[in-house]
Amino acid sequence: MIVIGLDPGITATGYAVLKQDQQRPVLLQAGSLRPKRNWKLWEKLFFIYEGLNRIFEEFSPKEAAIEDVFVSKNAKSALKLGHARGVAMLVCAIQNIEIFQYEPSVIKKSVTGTGMAKKEQIKYMIEKILGIKDNWSEDASDAIAVAMCHLNQRSFYDRIY
Amino acid sequence: MIVIGLDPGITATGYAVLKQDQQRPVLLQAGSLRPKRNWKLWEKLFFIYEGLNRIFEEFSPKEAAIEDVFVSKNAKSALKLGHARGVAMLVCAIQNIEIFQYEPSVIKKSVTGTGMAKKEQIKYMIEKILGIKDNWSEDASDAIAVAMCHLNQRSFYDRIY
Repeated sequence: MIVIGLDPGITATGYAVLKQDQQRPVLLQAGSLRPKRNWKLWEKLFFIYEGLNRIFEEFSPKEAAIEDVFVSKNAKSALKLGHARGVAMLVCAIQNIEIFQYEPSVIKKSVTGTGMAKKEQIKYMIEKILGIKDNWSEDASDAIAVAMCHLNQRSFYDRIY
Repeated sequence: MIVIGLDPGITATGYAVLKQDQQRPVLLQAGSLRPKRNWKLWEKLFFIYEGLNRIFEEFSPKEAAIEDVFVSKNAKSALKLGHARGVAMLVCAIQNIEIFQYEPSVIKKSVTGTGMAKKEQIKYMIEKILGIKDNWSEDASDAIAVAMCHLNQRSFYDRIY
């Protein structure tokens, strides 16, 4: 089973393609899509759309995982985030794959054992679990975490049902 | 010149296709895309995406007009709106057409002569300008207004440049 983790944003959309290989998740690719700053909003959205399409073409993930949004008090940034998140979800819908949403604390707990984990702890655990070290951007590493969380949930359900 | 006006929303996305016929705008089609309430968010986005694609296929509008968003204090609804707006903008970007954004007061002023106009005034003026009466939904009539505003701006610039 190949899954994709997504951390959408207008400035940077993180993605991570993971494969469950027996007990261990294997990272196939992670990175972030960064539209040029001076582009118009819809040019940025198109760039994210095209980038995600390329990744879907290459890896054909069967399920997607995305962070359930923590709604900040800033309506302006929520609106902006919504644009990117809508496009990311649409790409999954066009590919006809299911999207699973996880709350930030659930992701943290799933990867580190605690829902209060900090960024560095998450990065540390991701590297440990994958058995590789890399200089992932923050959004790429968030995308890895949500994909990992989803694989954990899946194998948990696979075991009990 | 055929233009499309858009009033994106998750519950309902209004659209209006208008053609400038000498001095008078002619309505080719207006309506709203209403995803089923019990659908998942990405199913709704896909429905909007497909609906807009069909309209683009039928009418091939050359430019799009959309309301510049009034950011409400409610971050949750701003986020939701962002998803739909992102998808609507993406459809335009895929079709490689330019999007023009207008502030609500500019749209009102362009259609009714006053930036403070109420919904009924806008509907009244739209019917008067188009020379037809119809039972448009609120989002369809907002989409007509923004498309009309854009045609006004265009003919203004065409005249002076």
